[in-house]
Amino acid sequence: MATTRKSQATNKGLEDMFLDGLKDIYYAEKKILKALPKMAKGAESEEVAAAFEKHREQTEEQVDRLEQIFETLGKAARGKTCPAIDGIIEEGSEILEDYKGAPALDAGLLAAAQAVEHYEIARYGTLCAWAEQLGMPDAAKLLKQTLQEESETDETLSRLGQGGINERAVQQAA
Amino acid sequence: MATTRKSQATNKGLEDMFLDGLKDIYYAEKKILKALPKMAKGAESEEVAAAFEKHREQTEEQVDRLEQIFETLGKAARGKTCPAIDGIIEEGSEILEDYKGAPALDAGLLAAAQAVEHYEIARYGTLCAWAEQLGMPDAAKLLKQTLQEESETDETLSRLGQGGINERAVQQAA
Repeated sequence: MATTRKSQATNKGLEDMFLDGLKDIYYAEKKILKALPKMAKGAESEEVAAAFEKHREQTEEQVDRLEQIFETLGKAARGKTCPAIDGIIEEGSEILEDYKGAPALDAGLLAAAQAVEHYEIARYGTLCAWAEQLGMPDAAKLLKQTLQEESETDETLSRLGQGGINERAVQQAA
Repeated sequence: MATTRKSQATNKGLEDMFLDGLKDIYYAEKKILKALPKMAKGAESEEVAAAFEKHREQTEEQVDRLEQIFETLGKAARGKTCPAIDGIIEEGSEILEDYKGAPALDAGLLAAAQAVEHYEIARYGTLCAWAEQLGMPDAAKLLKQTLQEESETDETLSRLGQGGINERAVQQAA
């Protein structure tokens, strides 16, 4: 029996989009893994550097989780260029350059890192909802675990900013 | 002995960074204003199109609020290229192109819009904390109002996805 066969593009469903989304965030996580040590090295204060270092370790586990999901899907773990994270990380690099040695540097680095976190929160939130919709509870669980970590990291960074880093950026510049 | 003389860059404090941040999000809001009608036009379902249209109207008010803050600072309202939003919007355009006519299109558009919202949530959250730190309660209030709207929009988009759009993306593709 001849089945109706739409073109590949118009037949794309949520499963295709889920795989595209995984590739997008896999690329993003790999970029973040490279960016975090630079941000940690550039930071003026030890607590900001330590937060970035801790998140780098967490990111390695998050990459592992994505690889587990690719494996479950029987797909090779492969990234797909993600212009969003490229742009977000570029803004972080601009901060490192434009504010090198400046009192506001660490406040800016925290802000850059929070933009990264929120990109991940958006993507993992979506992927988690899609995994549930697609009846993939194991994948959803792994994605939720990472989502939780990203939210916690975002809160830690907010606390660092409001707990002294933002204040120092003002005082030192006065 | 010659006095230590920091370059202009190294003297930059939180107020400079606040102004840079305002310019960044001002550019972003203007880009979003242009992108939303394209996303609304491309959406398959009326409820997704309506959500984008409603958010376009809200974005106009958010631009007004930023202009009020620039005015308070005695600065011209001017954007500064924001590679992050350029990248995020580029990914939305890719969805529109790659999934044109596909069952998963609207699920992808919601995801793209949520990436935009989360970028804004990150930036407005930071700017709000900085305005408070800088003793600018009026600016902080305006920024908080927008932050609240962005969070609500993000939740609305999540509800739309989980309330039928994600399911349709699976069923129609089956």
